[in-house]
Amino acid sequence: MMILRYAPASPFVRKVRIAASILGLADRIELVTSNTADQQDPVRQDNPLGKIPTLVLENGMRLYDSPVIMAYLDSLAGGGKIIPAGEMRFKALTLEALADGMLDALILQVYEVRYRSEERREPSWVQHQADKVSRSLAALEDDPPALVDGLPNVGCIALACALGYQDLRFEAKWRPGHPRLVGWLDRFAKAVPAFEETRFKG
Amino acid sequence: MMILRYAPASPFVRKVRIAASILGLADRIELVTSNTADQQDPVRQDNPLGKIPTLVLENGMRLYDSPVIMAYLDSLAGGGKIIPAGEMRFKALTLEALADGMLDALILQVYEVRYRSEERREPSWVQHQADKVSRSLAALEDDPPALVDGLPNVGCIALACALGYQDLRFEAKWRPGHPRLVGWLDRFAKAVPAFEETRFKG
Repeated sequence: MMILRYAPASPFVRKVRIAASILGLADRIELVTSNTADQQDPVRQDNPLGKIPTLVLENGMRLYDSPVIMAYLDSLAGGGKIIPAGEMRFKALTLEALADGMLDALILQVYEVRYRSEERREPSWVQHQADKVSRSLAALEDDPPALVDGLPNVGCIALACALGYQDLRFEAKWRPGHPRLVGWLDRFAKAVPAFEETRFKG
Repeated sequence: MMILRYAPASPFVRKVRIAASILGLADRIELVTSNTADQQDPVRQDNPLGKIPTLVLENGMRLYDSPVIMAYLDSLAGGGKIIPAGEMRFKALTLEALADGMLDALILQVYEVRYRSEERREPSWVQHQADKVSRSLAALEDDPPALVDGLPNVGCIALACALGYQDLRFEAKWRPGHPRLVGWLDRFAKAVPAFEETRFKG
């Protein structure tokens, strides 16, 4: 068994769990809860950054971050499954980077509250992060990614997780202004049961 | 010509410039300075996150973030050049993610000063980021990556840029405690002239 260091609410872990599910690899991966705030948590041995997801292979090799794990799972499943071949590859990978970048900007907003007392928060920094998300949502609403039949690619998986994270932590405020993306996420959820199965209900 | 939206001091851009140089692609890429703090900068059209490096291809396609651009340049050069095949691939990609994660943690420390007045800084947050870097340096000092003959892989390129960034912005404080990594960086710099050529001298 591989070990996935994980937390149930992590959107980056969710990417990996969805990928494992649709690639038929979920039963080869044991989920082990990690508390990244705990200095004694074994994740810091496996990944000096102390971040999840971190995947421990049977041979002891450690893989991170989430795009690397996604690429590994794709190769384990034979390749070309969730990372398309040819030029579509870089389109999918760039969409993944866009969605991951949205997540980074969202998480920095969450951390601003979680790690700082009110007088140490910086509204212009929070706005700077929020603007990254707004611009990304606007660009994606303008031109939602194709959801073709067959397996979704890593970009679509990451985008679904980035939208789902805003449902979880930002009161779904993205929805009213982005009807095409709302429809896109509905179609994604219908095509990929693992999306709902991995939704954090805490 | 491709266009690389860039800034001379960006360590993530430096990765791409080194890759382009060693892959013989530098003369196909025009460097265009980007001010990511300027709302009117065209980088925000090319990449809604407003981040550099962003690569604009001749067909108009936009690629980011730096690991995606590195993979694209490798494929453009025929593949298997700076991203090895087989299991070494994921070792190299994970090292790249480690070095990129160190850079993220370093840049958050720089931004803490740049974007906040003194009373809005949070020492425990800065320490949390600094600890990620310390643990990563300790793990790498324990077991420095192999520098084999031939082209360095994306992981080694990223690590060199992460160490170089600490020379630039953190007064080279990493050096005294990490003699093996200092020796590693010396060997890297000797083997890869583009490392010195892309050093920011501002």
